[in-house]
Parts: sequence; structure tokens; C-alpha cells
Amino acid sequence: MTALPVPSAVAVTFVGAGPGAAAHLTLGAYGALQAADVVIHDRLVGAEILALIPAAVRKIDMGKEGFGPSAAQADINTTLVAEAQSGAKVVRLKGGDCGIFGRLDEEIDALEAAGLSFVILPGLTSAAVAAANIGQSLTRRGRNASLRIVTGHDMVGFAEQDWRAIARAGEVTAIYMGKKSARFIQGRLLMHGADADTPVSLIENVSRPDERVIAATLATLPEAAAQLAGPAVILYGLSPRRTAAVLPALKEALA
Amino acid sequence: MTALPVPSAVAVTFVGAGPGAAAHLTLGAYGALQAADVVIHDRLVGAEILALIPAAVRKIDMGKEGFGPSAAQADINTTLVAEAQSGAKVVRLKGGDCGIFGRLDEEIDALEAAGLSFVILPGLTSAAVAAANIGQSLTRRGRNASLRIVTGHDMVGFAEQDWRAIARAGEVTAIYMGKKSARFIQGRLLMHGADADTPVSLIENVSRPDERVIAATLATLPEAAAQLAGPAVILYGLSPRRTAAVLPALKEALA
Repeated sequence: MTALPVPSAVAVTFVGAGPGAAAHLTLGAYGALQAADVVIHDRLVGAEILALIPAAVRKIDMGKEGFGPSAAQADINTTLVAEAQSGAKVVRLKGGDCGIFGRLDEEIDALEAAGLSFVILPGLTSAAVAAANIGQSLTRRGRNASLRIVTGHDMVGFAEQDWRAIARAGEVTAIYMGKKSARFIQGRLLMHGADADTPVSLIENVSRPDERVIAATLATLPEAAAQLAGPAVILYGLSPRRTAAVLPALKEALA
Repeated sequence: MTALPVPSAVAVTFVGAGPGAAAHLTLGAYGALQAADVVIHDRLVGAEILALIPAAVRKIDMGKEGFGPSAAQADINTTLVAEAQSGAKVVRLKGGDCGIFGRLDEEIDALEAAGLSFVILPGLTSAAVAAANIGQSLTRRGRNASLRIVTGHDMVGFAEQDWRAIARAGEVTAIYMGKKSARFIQGRLLMHGADADTPVSLIENVSRPDERVIAATLATLPEAAAQLAGPAVILYGLSPRRTAAVLPALKEALA
């Protein structure tokens, strides 16, 4: 048992916004947005989520054009620390789950260096919502006893993964940021013995009004990925259920 | 682009309840519980979540003692289909994310066989909330470009995994239902070259009032797992951040 020190007040609340729809925001995240003095958000946070922030709350968009890819993180850290040190109740709002490919640690490190406290309210990661919207589960008894969530590219380019394991029949892997590396991924998996007919689902703009599902196979993955315009998650090993109720039915259920 | 048929009415809404705290329930899940005629729930759904179901909604607890482990699923399927066929607005409520180790497919198969429609509202899986509550993220640039979610046991006993990949330095794996297989997992990982000092966090009763964090290493994993009494997730490759604000601070943030 580790006794963790509890800060006397929380300076920054990290909030995962989920992939886009307000239906996928948590009650805790909603509450944190209502209680905030300032919300520092990313470009990837959905319009439906931003609309839930009260008008009186200051909003800082850290995803505006003009921030270069490497300069942005330092700027975000500086803004985050400055706002928290001013005594403002800060919410740092990130698309999806801030703990999965959310660069959360860089910001936590900056807060820690400044002696500032934080809590994390995770959000639904897009793979979970994408699988639900094609009527599939990410694990299935007798099919796969594990799930992989991987990124298509990392700091040094196309990300190397454990291709042999991913290539095995029945495995399910969610690939984030995989559009540009689709052909690379296809090549690696075929080289490691994957079946070219393995089903692959590409879900673009997950849970947003313009959500689109592309059913493909490993053989057609690069052509399918080339059709993607918005952010997408690739579910390797899963095909859309023909009888799945997708967005229109979801809206009906929530109406 | 696959055109999926849209059902004229949704018979069953599958809802992931998250690991326990109401703060981690989604707005969509909350809405579905309010709109339901009947909620069929598992034993693992937290008391805080059950308290959100209106008194007028019928609740069916499918996790009661008396259902054997293999008989239970058939009974659940039968109940689910019968309630939906009666015209009731059915919510099937599962702990965590119904799409991750939630046996969702068995129930969907039963609905499909009966010609009944469904939608899925995913919930936060315990690994995401556990990582947040120890102040860590599940992926980190320069450390791990992938995350594994695995089960400690499957239909044939202790689950075999891709131990060599899991054993690599910097990798993060969330292990569900790992209490009984902790010594087996330790053995497999050491055999595949894992460092005995690799940090491991065990989080029991994630997000519930009795949440407990045990900081261990691969060397001490079996002893730490032996202390677990409730449901727990094992985060292999992560140690609790000393400065992380855990539950008391989270409650303060949400108050």
C-alpha cells in the first residue's frame, strides 16, 4: 500500500473529452467543465463538447494554426502553468482519452516542476467508441484474449510494432494515426504471415455527425486509408456487423 | 463505404457503466438509464451507478448467486431476448466497457438470432481510470508506442500472451483478472527477459470508495496480488506517481 500525498487544492484537472459526441462525455468531465475558470483545449475536441462549456468560462484554443508541431507543447506547458499559478481553476481538455496518445506526461511534468497539483478524468478513447459503432467488441472469448492499441507513427517515423503477434489470426489491434503508414503496416503484417483477407474497419470522425465507416481487408487497407480525410481509427481484425445499429439508431436511442 | 441497415427501433441498448464511480459514467449512458423500462445488470456494476436508475425502472440483477458460471450466460441471453420481445425498452448494463472482456458478442448473437436490434454505448474500462488515478498515462512518447490490454485467464486457464513483447523495457500492459495468475505471469515474463525491478501497480476497486493502490515490482507481484480482495487491474510497467492526486483530491475537484 502506497500512501500518496493529497494536495490541498487541485490546480489543474485533465479531462478526456472522448472522440466527439456529447453522449460519450462523462458526468465528471461535464461537471469539471461547468466548474472551470478556464478551459485550455485542443483542436481535436469536438464542437459538441465545446458547446457544453459555459459562456462565462474562458476558452483557450491551443490547436490554432501558427503553433508549429514542436513549439506547441512548450507553449501549452507555459500557458498551463501560468494559468494555474494565477489561481484560476484550470481544465485541460483533450480529445479522446488524455492517457492514450494524449501527451499527458509532458504537461504533468511541467506541473510537477512548478509544484502544482492535478487530477485526471479519463475519457473514452476512439477505439472503444468506434468498435461500439460497428457493433463489435474489442475482445471476444475464444477469439482474442488481448487487445492492442498502437500508433501508426511515433517520434522517429512509422512506428515498429510487434508485427508477428499482431499478424496472428483472431487478434484485434486498434491503430491510431495510421493513415499515412497504412501501406507500411500492410507490408509488415503480410511479411509476418497475416492473411490478406483479414477484415479491417476504418472509422473516420468517430461519433461525429460525419462519422464514416469503411469496411476493408488487409489487402485493400492502403486504398481504404487513402479515402480518409479526417481523424480515423483503424480496427485491424474486425469487420462491421451487418446488423449493427450505427449513428442514426444511436441518436434515436438517445432522443 | 459500407451502408449499414438502420433498424426502425432499438430493442436493446448495451451500456458500459465504467468501473464504479458515477463521475465516470457517460452522459449517453445516464440518459439511457433514465429512458429505460428495464435494466438488466451485472454484479460488477457499482452501487453509485445503480443508484442513478429511477425507482420506476425495473432492475434485473443477473449476477446473483445461484447462477453457475456456464449456465449464467444462457440465462442472461434468454432474459434479454424475452424482455426485448415483450416491447420493453431494455438497457443491458455491464461494468467497465462492455466491449472489453464484457462477453458482449454472446448477447449480440442471441439478439441477432431473434432479429432484434441494438446499439452500444461504451463505458470507461478500468485500466483507463486506474492509470488516471495513479497519475499516469498508458502511452508516453519515447517510452511506449503501444498499449496491451490482456486477461489473466481465458476459457482454457491461464491465458498465454505474447510474453516476449510484454517483457520489453518500457512496455505497458493492463492485466485484467490477473489475481490468480500473478505467479504464472511473473514466471513467464522473467523467462522472457523482463527486469525483476519493472514497476507494477495493482489498483483494486477502481474509482470506488474503497479503491486501493498497491505499488509493486515484477519481483513482488505475486505477494501484492495475494493482498487483493476485490476486482483489480494490474498495470504492468507503471508505478504510481508520488505527486498524483488520487481519490480524495478527485472528489474535491468534483465537489
